[in-house]
Amino acid sequence: MSPPAFEVVRASPDGARLGRLTLTHGVVETPAFMPVATQGSVKGVTPAQLEDAGATIVLANAYHLAQRPGVDAITALGGLHALMGWSRPLLTDSGGFQLMSLAGLVRVTDDGVRYRSHIDGRAGFMRPEDAVAIQEALGVDVAMSLDECVPADATPARVARAVARTSAWAARGLAARRRVDMALFGIVQGGLDVTRRAESATDLLALAFDGYAVGGLCVGEPPEETARVAEATVHLLPEDRPRYLMGMGTPRDLLRFMALGYDLFDCVLPTRNGRNGTLFTREGKLMIRNARHAHDARPPDVSCGCYTCRHFSRGALRHLALAGEMLAAQLATLHNLSFYLHLMSEMRADLRAGTFPARARAAAGAWA
Amino acid sequence: MSPPAFEVVRASPDGARLGRLTLTHGVVETPAFMPVATQGSVKGVTPAQLEDAGATIVLANAYHLAQRPGVDAITALGGLHALMGWSRPLLTDSGGFQLMSLAGLVRVTDDGVRYRSHIDGRAGFMRPEDAVAIQEALGVDVAMSLDECVPADATPARVARAVARTSAWAARGLAARRRVDMALFGIVQGGLDVTRRAESATDLLALAFDGYAVGGLCVGEPPEETARVAEATVHLLPEDRPRYLMGMGTPRDLLRFMALGYDLFDCVLPTRNGRNGTLFTREGKLMIRNARHAHDARPPDVSCGCYTCRHFSRGALRHLALAGEMLAAQLATLHNLSFYLHLMSEMRADLRAGTFPARARAAAGAWA
Repeated sequence: MSPPAFEVVRASPDGARLGRLTLTHGVVETPAFMPVATQGSVKGVTPAQLEDAGATIVLANAYHLAQRPGVDAITALGGLHALMGWSRPLLTDSGGFQLMSLAGLVRVTDDGVRYRSHIDGRAGFMRPEDAVAIQEALGVDVAMSLDECVPADATPARVARAVARTSAWAARGLAARRRVDMALFGIVQGGLDVTRRAESATDLLALAFDGYAVGGLCVGEPPEETARVAEATVHLLPEDRPRYLMGMGTPRDLLRFMALGYDLFDCVLPTRNGRNGTLFTREGKLMIRNARHAHDARPPDVSCGCYTCRHFSRGALRHLALAGEMLAAQLATLHNLSFYLHLMSEMRADLRAGTFPARARAAAGAWA
Repeated sequence: MSPPAFEVVRASPDGARLGRLTLTHGVVETPAFMPVATQGSVKGVTPAQLEDAGATIVLANAYHLAQRPGVDAITALGGLHALMGWSRPLLTDSGGFQLMSLAGLVRVTDDGVRYRSHIDGRAGFMRPEDAVAIQEALGVDVAMSLDECVPADATPARVARAVARTSAWAARGLAARRRVDMALFGIVQGGLDVTRRAESATDLLALAFDGYAVGGLCVGEPPEETARVAEATVHLLPEDRPRYLMGMGTPRDLLRFMALGYDLFDCVLPTRNGRNGTLFTREGKLMIRNARHAHDARPPDVSCGCYTCRHFSRGALRHLALAGEMLAAQLATLHNLSFYLHLMSEMRADLRAGTFPARARAAAGAWA
C-alpha cells in the first residue's frame, strides 16, 4: 500500500486552497467536512445515506471505541471500517479532547493519561504509543497524535505544560508508528496564547507528520478569540500538508476558516441540531417545531436536492418531530449533513474555478 | 380514476391465494404485509428504504392523524401521501381499535364514539360517517369502516352489541362514501364467539364493501383462540374480495393465516422488535444485545440480502445497540421489515408456481 499523500491542487491568493488527500480507502477532496461518528455511527443516518450525501471521510473516536466495544472486538469484527459498514476514509481522534471533557476521572502525567472509563469505571492508562497502536489496530486512514487539551480558562503555566507534553507525546507517538498506510497528524496546542501556539507548531513541524491539526479551540472561549487564534495559527502550518481545524463549526465558520487555508473540519452541529429539530438552510436556521410551519408545504430548503427536501415538507417534518417519531431526527440529520457537504462541494467548485470566495461571502452574509 | 379492483390470480387447493389488488396509487400483490405507520411514519426507516425493502402498501391510523397534525394540516400539506413522503398505496385504520385501547377516555353510543383526545384532552365525537370523510380527506387508497372493538374478556351481551353497532356503522359509513377511487373495507367483529362472527359477516356481506377485515383479535386472548376464530371466520368471507387479518402477527402467524386464505396483514412486531434489538432470522429470533454476539462477524441472517445484512455484523449491531446509537434501531428495523417483506415475496412466488405451502411449512418449522 502506498503511503498517504496530499497535494494542493489550486491555491487562492487569499490563502484558501483546493486539495487532494489520497488515503488508503480513497481520495478526499479538500476543503472537506467530516461527519462525526464518535462511537462508530453518525447518529441517525446509514453509511449509504452518508455516501449519497457526499461524505468522503468520517470522524470516529479511538478513546470511545477502545472503551466500547474494545479493540479486541473491533479486530475480531474486521476493523473499524467493517464495524461501521463504511468503506471510505476514516479519521480517528485519539481521545485527548474526550479525556479532558471527562475531567475528574483523569490524571495526566508526562508518561500519559490515567483515567477511569466513563463506561464501566475500569482504570486505564493511555500513553501516546498506545494511542497510535489503537488507531493502527482499528485500521483507520488518519490517526491523531495524543495531545493534552486544556480548557479556555487554563493558567499560563498549565498551557505551557500542555504544549510541552503534547510535543513530547507527538515525538513518542510518531516513533511508535508501524503502519505506513496510516497517516498520522500532529495537534497544535497552546490555548489562546499565540506565542505558545507558535512554540507548539515549531515543535511539531520538526517532526514528519502527514498533516497538522489545530486543537484546543471551541472549548469555552468567545468566538472572536477562536478566530484570532485559528487565524494566527494557520500561518504557522506548512503549505504542503493538510490543515485540520478540530471541532469547527457552523456553516459560516467553515466558510471563514477555509478562506484562511484550513482543509479539514468536523463538528457535531449538523447531527445534534438535526436531532433537536434545527435545520440549516440557505436562508438561515429553521426551528422545525415552530407553529408557523404547520401548514407549510415547502421543503425545508427550496434550493436543496437532498432526500428530505425532495420528499418532505416543513409541515410534515414539524408533525413528525412533535409526534416524537425518530424519522424526524433521521430526516433533519440527513438534510443538515447534505447541506454541509453540498456547501463544501460548492466551495471546492469555486476554488477550482478560481471564483472563491465570492459565493462564500454571499452565503455567509445570508446567515448574518 | 378507476375504482379499486381485486383479482385472485391463483388459488391453492388448501385455500391460500395469490392476488392482485389494484389501487389508486399502485398494485399490491397479495398475500402482503403492511408496515405500520400509525402517526405517518414507519418508525426508523425512510419511505425510500421501505420501497427498497419491497413494501407496496403501508398502514396508517386515521384517528391518530386526525388528532395530530389534524385533517386541515394534512390537507394543506397535500394529503397523507405527501405528508408521509410515500407514493405507493396507503391503508388507514379508522381508529376503532385505537379508541378501544384508549378506553376510559371514550364512551360509545349507537351514534358513534365520544372521546377525549389522547394528545390534548380535547373532546371529540367520531361517527362512522366522520371516519369515512376523514379517510377521504387524507386521500388514502383503502379506508376501514368504523367498528366497535371489544376486549377478549367482554361479556356475550357486550360482544353482541358491538356486532350490531359495527354492522349499523358499516352501512352508514358506506352510504356516506363519496370517493369511488378509495376502497372501503368492512370489519367483522364478534369476539371469540363464532356464531357472532357469522352474524357480523352476514351483515357486512350484504353491503358492497371492497374488502373484508377480521378485527378484534390479538386483543388479549390465547393464541389458539385467535387461530380458532381466524380460521372459522375466513370461510365466511367472499372469495372475490381481499381478506385482511388485522394486527397479525409473527412470521409464523403470517404463514399460517395466509395458508387459510388471508391476503393482508399488518403488525408492529418487526418495527417494535427492531427498536428493542430483536431480529427475525431464518433460524429464529436473535437478541442482538446478547454477549455471545460480541465477536461475531456474521451478518444477522446469513441468507438475507438486506442493507443491514450486507454491511453490518452481529457484533457491530450489538455494539451500536449497547452504545445507544439510534442507527442500531434503524438497521434492525430495516432488517426485520426486509425479512417480513421478503418472506411474503417468497410465498407469493410459491403460490404462483403452485408449490405453496412446502416452503412455508419448512420455514415455520424452523421457528418452532
